[in-house]
Amino acid sequence: MEVERKFLVTDSPDLDGTESDEIEQGYLALGSDGEVRLRRKGDHRLLTAKRGSGLSRDEAEVELEPDAFESLWTLTEGRRLHKRRHVIPHGELKIEVDVYAGDLDGLVVAEVEFASEDEARRFEPPGWVGQEVTGDERYLNETLATQGRPS
Amino acid sequence: MEVERKFLVTDSPDLDGTESDEIEQGYLALGSDGEVRLRRKGDHRLLTAKRGSGLSRDEAEVELEPDAFESLWTLTEGRRLHKRRHVIPHGELKIEVDVYAGDLDGLVVAEVEFASEDEARRFEPPGWVGQEVTGDERYLNETLATQGRPS
Repeated sequence: MEVERKFLVTDSPDLDGTESDEIEQGYLALGSDGEVRLRRKGDHRLLTAKRGSGLSRDEAEVELEPDAFESLWTLTEGRRLHKRRHVIPHGELKIEVDVYAGDLDGLVVAEVEFASEDEARRFEPPGWVGQEVTGDERYLNETLATQGRPS
Repeated sequence: MEVERKFLVTDSPDLDGTESDEIEQGYLALGSDGEVRLRRKGDHRLLTAKRGSGLSRDEAEVELEPDAFESLWTLTEGRRLHKRRHVIPHGELKIEVDVYAGDLDGLVVAEVEFASEDEARRFEPPGWVGQEVTGDERYLNETLATQGRPS
Protein backbone atom coordinates (compact mmCIF):
# COMPACT_ATOMS: atom_id res chain seq x y z
CA MET A 1 0.00 0.00 0.00
CA GLU A 2 1.20 3.46 -0.90
CA VAL A 3 1.33 6.03 1.89
CA GLU A 4 1.66 9.50 0.45
CA ARG A 5 1.11 13.10 1.39
CA LYS A 6 0.54 15.85 -1.16
CA PHE A 7 0.92 19.61 -0.85
CA LEU A 8 0.47 22.67 -3.01
CA VAL A 9 3.61 24.72 -3.58
CA THR A 10 2.98 28.43 -3.95
CA ASP A 11 6.48 29.64 -3.15
CA SER A 12 8.68 27.22 -5.09
CA PRO A 13 12.31 26.73 -4.06
CA ASP A 14 15.04 27.13 -6.67
CA LEU A 15 14.74 23.99 -8.80
CA ASP A 16 17.70 24.68 -11.08
CA GLY A 17 20.14 21.79 -11.08
CA THR A 18 17.81 19.35 -9.34
CA GLU A 19 17.36 15.87 -10.78
CA SER A 20 14.30 16.10 -13.03
CA ASP A 21 12.36 14.45 -15.85
CA GLU A 22 9.82 15.65 -18.40
CA ILE A 23 6.61 13.66 -18.03
CA GLU A 24 3.75 13.52 -20.50
CA GLN A 25 0.83 11.36 -19.59
CA GLY A 26 -2.59 10.59 -20.98
CA TYR A 27 -5.44 8.26 -20.09
CA LEU A 28 -6.90 5.51 -22.29
CA ALA A 29 -9.51 4.72 -19.67
CA LEU A 30 -10.52 6.28 -16.37
CA GLY A 31 -12.74 5.39 -13.51
CA SER A 32 -13.20 3.01 -10.65
CA ASP A 33 -13.60 -0.06 -12.84
CA GLY A 34 -10.14 0.27 -14.36
CA GLU A 35 -7.66 2.97 -15.21
CA VAL A 36 -5.12 2.70 -18.02
CA ARG A 37 -2.48 5.39 -18.31
CA LEU A 38 0.25 6.08 -20.85
CA ARG A 39 3.33 7.92 -19.66
CA ARG A 40 6.43 9.13 -21.45
CA LYS A 41 9.18 9.90 -18.95
CA GLY A 42 12.55 10.69 -20.50
CA ASP A 43 13.23 7.79 -22.90
CA HIS A 44 10.72 5.48 -21.25
CA ARG A 45 7.26 4.83 -22.64
CA LEU A 46 5.07 3.13 -20.11
CA LEU A 47 1.57 1.74 -19.94
CA THR A 48 0.17 1.40 -16.42
CA ALA A 49 -3.07 -0.36 -15.59
CA LYS A 50 -4.77 -0.02 -12.20
CA ARG A 51 -7.77 -1.77 -10.87
CA GLY A 52 -9.85 -1.42 -7.73
CA SER A 53 -9.44 1.36 -5.23
CA GLY A 54 -8.02 2.02 -1.79
CA LEU A 55 -6.36 -0.92 -0.07
CA SER A 56 -7.15 -3.45 -2.77
CA ARG A 57 -5.70 -1.50 -5.67
CA ASP A 58 -3.73 -3.70 -8.10
CA GLU A 59 -1.32 -2.24 -10.57
CA ALA A 60 0.84 -3.42 -13.47
CA GLU A 61 3.26 -1.40 -15.54
CA VAL A 62 4.91 -2.34 -18.84
CA GLU A 63 7.26 -0.66 -21.26
CA LEU A 64 5.97 -0.13 -24.81
CA GLU A 65 7.79 0.10 -28.13
CA PRO A 66 7.77 3.65 -29.59
CA ASP A 67 5.36 2.71 -32.43
CA ALA A 68 2.89 1.03 -30.11
CA PHE A 69 3.02 3.98 -27.72
CA GLU A 70 2.33 6.53 -30.47
CA SER A 71 -0.53 4.53 -31.88
CA LEU A 72 -2.27 4.32 -28.49
CA TRP A 73 -1.38 7.89 -27.54
CA THR A 74 -3.75 9.30 -30.21
CA LEU A 75 -6.67 7.94 -28.17
CA THR A 76 -5.74 9.99 -25.08
CA GLU A 77 -6.65 13.32 -26.67
CA GLY A 78 -8.34 15.68 -24.21
CA ARG A 79 -7.08 13.61 -21.26
CA ARG A 80 -3.43 14.54 -21.17
CA LEU A 81 -1.09 16.47 -18.95
CA HIS A 82 2.46 17.62 -19.11
CA LYS A 83 4.78 18.32 -16.18
CA ARG A 84 8.39 18.34 -15.09
CA ARG A 85 9.10 16.26 -12.01
CA HIS A 86 11.95 17.43 -9.79
CA VAL A 87 13.28 15.22 -7.03
CA ILE A 88 14.51 17.05 -3.92
CA PRO A 89 16.26 15.09 -1.13
CA HIS A 90 14.85 15.82 2.33
CA GLY A 91 16.74 13.87 5.00
CA GLU A 92 16.06 10.20 4.28
CA LEU A 93 13.07 11.14 2.13
CA LYS A 94 12.59 12.42 -1.39
CA ILE A 95 10.14 15.17 -2.22
CA GLU A 96 8.81 15.03 -5.76
CA VAL A 97 7.90 18.48 -7.03
CA ASP A 98 5.68 18.41 -10.13
CA VAL A 99 5.71 21.63 -12.12
CA TYR A 100 2.76 21.46 -14.50
CA ALA A 101 2.83 22.99 -18.00
CA GLY A 102 0.32 23.72 -20.77
CA ASP A 103 -3.26 24.26 -19.55
CA LEU A 104 -2.11 23.61 -15.99
CA ASP A 105 0.72 26.14 -16.13
CA GLY A 106 1.30 27.70 -12.70
CA LEU A 107 0.31 24.63 -10.72
CA VAL A 108 3.11 23.15 -8.59
CA VAL A 109 2.49 20.13 -6.37
CA ALA A 110 4.84 18.36 -3.94
CA GLU A 111 4.39 14.70 -3.09
CA VAL A 112 6.19 12.53 -0.56
CA GLU A 113 5.97 8.78 -0.24
CA PHE A 114 6.47 7.08 3.13
CA ALA A 115 7.24 3.58 4.35
CA SER A 116 4.46 3.69 6.95
CA GLU A 117 1.55 5.79 8.19
CA ASP A 118 3.56 6.55 11.30
CA GLU A 119 6.38 8.02 9.24
CA ALA A 120 3.82 10.02 7.23
CA ARG A 121 2.38 11.56 10.42
CA ARG A 122 5.83 12.52 11.72
CA PHE A 123 6.85 14.25 8.49
CA GLU A 124 7.80 17.90 8.91
CA PRO A 125 7.46 19.66 5.56
CA PRO A 126 10.04 22.27 4.52
CA GLY A 127 8.99 25.92 4.72
CA TRP A 128 8.31 26.31 0.98
CA VAL A 129 5.51 23.74 1.11
CA GLY A 130 1.98 25.16 1.30
CA GLN A 131 -1.55 23.82 1.83
CA GLU A 132 -1.90 20.06 2.21
CA VAL A 133 -4.17 18.43 -0.40
CA THR A 134 -3.68 14.74 0.47
CA GLY A 135 -6.81 12.84 -0.56
CA ASP A 136 -8.28 15.83 -2.40
CA GLU A 137 -9.63 14.32 -5.63
CA ARG A 138 -9.34 17.62 -7.47
CA TYR A 139 -5.57 17.19 -7.39
CA LEU A 140 -5.45 13.63 -8.69
CA ASN A 141 -3.65 13.53 -12.02
CA GLU A 142 -6.66 11.93 -13.70
CA THR A 143 -8.84 14.82 -12.51
CA LEU A 144 -6.30 17.43 -13.59
CA ALA A 145 -6.00 15.77 -17.02
CA THR A 146 -9.74 15.79 -17.67
CA GLN A 147 -11.09 18.74 -15.69
CA GLY A 148 -8.15 21.10 -15.52
CA ARG A 149 -6.96 23.15 -12.59
CA PRO A 150 -9.34 23.59 -9.65
CA SER A 151 -10.75 27.13 -9.63
CA MET B 1 -17.70 2.30 -39.52
CA GLU B 2 -18.31 -1.38 -38.87
CA VAL B 3 -21.56 -2.87 -40.18
CA GLU B 4 -22.20 -6.21 -38.56
CA ARG B 5 -25.02 -8.61 -37.89
CA LYS B 6 -24.95 -11.14 -35.08
CA PHE B 7 -26.97 -14.33 -34.61
CA LEU B 8 -27.29 -17.10 -32.08
CA VAL B 9 -26.44 -20.57 -33.32
CA THR B 10 -28.45 -23.35 -31.70
CA ASP B 11 -27.92 -26.01 -34.36
CA SER B 12 -24.23 -25.66 -35.17
CA PRO B 13 -22.92 -26.95 -38.52
CA ASP B 14 -19.98 -29.35 -38.55
CA LEU B 15 -16.99 -27.16 -37.70
CA ASP B 16 -14.33 -29.84 -38.04
CA GLY B 17 -11.63 -28.79 -40.46
CA THR B 18 -12.68 -25.14 -40.64
CA GLU B 19 -10.07 -22.42 -40.23
CA SER B 20 -10.09 -21.52 -36.54
CA ASP B 21 -8.21 -19.83 -33.69
CA GLU B 22 -8.31 -20.07 -29.94
CA ILE B 23 -9.08 -16.67 -28.46
CA GLU B 24 -8.66 -15.64 -24.84
CA GLN B 25 -9.57 -12.10 -23.98
CA GLY B 26 -9.88 -10.01 -20.85
CA TYR B 27 -10.66 -6.40 -20.05
CA LEU B 28 -8.38 -3.93 -18.24
CA ALA B 29 -11.06 -1.26 -18.39
CA LEU B 30 -14.67 -1.18 -19.52
CA GLY B 31 -17.26 1.42 -20.14
CA SER B 32 -18.21 4.32 -22.35
CA ASP B 33 -15.24 6.47 -21.34
CA GLY B 34 -12.69 3.99 -22.65
CA GLU B 35 -12.31 0.26 -23.13
CA VAL B 36 -8.98 -1.54 -23.04
CA ARG B 37 -8.93 -5.20 -24.02
CA LEU B 38 -6.19 -7.83 -24.02
CA ARG B 39 -6.50 -10.67 -26.50
CA ARG B 40 -4.39 -13.74 -27.13
CA LYS B 41 -5.20 -15.21 -30.56
CA GLY B 42 -2.90 -18.02 -31.65
CA ASP B 43 0.63 -16.62 -31.21
CA HIS B 44 -0.51 -13.01 -31.16
CA ARG B 45 -0.87 -10.97 -27.99
CA LEU B 46 -2.80 -7.81 -28.60
CA LEU B 47 -3.89 -4.79 -26.63
CA THR B 48 -6.83 -2.90 -28.12
CA ALA B 49 -8.05 0.46 -26.87
CA LYS B 50 -11.40 1.92 -27.90
CA ARG B 51 -12.87 5.25 -27.16
CA GLY B 52 -16.24 6.84 -27.78
CA SER B 53 -19.27 4.99 -29.04
CA GLY B 54 -21.32 4.56 -32.19
CA LEU B 55 -20.13 6.46 -35.23
CA SER B 56 -17.31 8.28 -33.49
CA ARG B 57 -15.60 5.21 -32.05
CA ASP B 58 -11.81 5.36 -32.31
CA GLU B 59 -9.67 2.28 -31.95
CA ALA B 60 -5.97 1.39 -31.77
CA GLU B 61 -4.43 -2.06 -31.56
CA VAL B 62 -0.85 -2.96 -30.69
CA GLU B 63 1.08 -6.19 -30.29
CA LEU B 64 2.63 -6.81 -26.85
CA GLU B 65 5.70 -8.78 -25.81
CA PRO B 66 4.82 -12.01 -23.94
CA ASP B 67 6.11 -10.68 -20.58
CA ALA B 68 4.19 -7.42 -20.86
CA PHE B 69 1.02 -9.29 -21.83
CA GLU B 70 1.26 -11.67 -18.86
CA SER B 71 1.91 -8.88 -16.42
CA LEU B 72 -1.18 -6.94 -17.54
CA TRP B 73 -3.30 -10.09 -17.92
CA THR B 74 -3.35 -10.64 -14.13
CA LEU B 75 -5.46 -7.47 -13.82
CA THR B 76 -8.25 -8.86 -16.04
CA GLU B 77 -9.35 -11.48 -13.50
CA GLY B 78 -13.12 -11.88 -13.42
CA ARG B 79 -13.46 -10.15 -16.79
CA ARG B 80 -12.25 -12.83 -19.15
CA LEU B 81 -13.68 -15.09 -21.78
CA HIS B 82 -12.43 -17.94 -23.85
CA LYS B 83 -13.71 -19.03 -27.25
CA ARG B 84 -12.71 -20.72 -30.48
CA ARG B 85 -13.43 -18.65 -33.58
CA HIS B 86 -14.21 -20.59 -36.75
CA VAL B 87 -14.33 -18.84 -40.11
CA ILE B 88 -16.85 -20.21 -42.61
CA PRO B 89 -16.93 -18.90 -46.19
CA HIS B 90 -20.41 -17.90 -47.37
CA GLY B 91 -20.35 -16.69 -50.95
CA GLU B 92 -18.24 -13.53 -50.93
CA LEU B 93 -18.68 -13.21 -47.18
CA LYS B 94 -17.13 -14.84 -44.15
CA ILE B 95 -19.19 -15.96 -41.20
CA GLU B 96 -17.29 -16.00 -37.92
CA VAL B 97 -18.66 -18.61 -35.55
CA ASP B 98 -17.54 -18.12 -31.95
CA VAL B 99 -17.83 -21.23 -29.80
CA TYR B 100 -17.50 -20.09 -26.19
CA ALA B 101 -15.85 -22.21 -23.50
CA GLY B 102 -15.51 -22.15 -19.71
CA ASP B 103 -18.40 -20.39 -17.91
CA LEU B 104 -19.99 -19.62 -21.27
CA ASP B 105 -19.85 -23.21 -22.50
CA GLY B 106 -22.79 -23.96 -24.81
CA LEU B 107 -23.02 -20.46 -26.25
CA VAL B 108 -22.35 -20.24 -30.01
CA VAL B 109 -22.62 -16.91 -31.84
CA ALA B 110 -22.25 -16.15 -35.55
CA GLU B 111 -21.13 -12.74 -36.74
CA VAL B 112 -20.87 -11.32 -40.25
CA GLU B 113 -19.24 -8.07 -41.27
CA PHE B 114 -20.48 -6.16 -44.32
CA ALA B 115 -19.12 -3.43 -46.57
CA SER B 116 -22.34 -1.41 -46.36
CA GLU B 117 -25.72 -1.27 -44.65
CA ASP B 118 -27.32 -2.21 -47.94
CA GLU B 119 -25.28 -5.40 -48.15
CA ALA B 120 -26.16 -6.15 -44.51
CA ARG B 121 -29.90 -5.87 -45.26
CA ARG B 122 -29.64 -8.17 -48.28
CA PHE B 123 -27.77 -10.89 -46.36
CA GLU B 124 -29.53 -14.27 -46.38
CA PRO B 125 -28.29 -16.30 -43.44
CA PRO B 126 -27.68 -20.03 -43.86
CA GLY B 127 -30.26 -22.39 -42.36
CA TRP B 128 -28.20 -23.24 -39.27
CA VAL B 129 -28.28 -19.64 -38.05
CA GLY B 130 -30.87 -18.88 -35.36
CA GLN B 131 -32.24 -15.80 -33.62
CA GLU B 132 -30.71 -12.46 -34.60
CA VAL B 133 -29.11 -10.56 -31.68
CA THR B 134 -27.54 -7.61 -33.55
CA GLY B 135 -27.35 -4.64 -31.14
CA ASP B 136 -28.35 -6.75 -28.13
CA GLU B 137 -25.96 -5.58 -25.40
CA ARG B 138 -26.26 -8.87 -23.51
CA TYR B 139 -24.26 -10.50 -26.29
CA LEU B 140 -21.44 -7.98 -26.40
CA ASN B 141 -18.16 -9.66 -25.44
CA GLU B 142 -17.63 -7.17 -22.61
CA THR B 143 -21.04 -8.07 -21.18
CA LEU B 144 -20.43 -11.81 -21.55
CA ALA B 145 -17.01 -11.44 -19.85
CA THR B 146 -18.40 -9.63 -16.82
CA GLN B 147 -21.99 -10.82 -16.47
CA GLY B 148 -21.92 -14.26 -18.05
CA ARG B 149 -24.45 -15.87 -20.31
CA PRO B 150 -27.90 -14.24 -20.55
CA SER B 151 -30.47 -16.36 -18.71
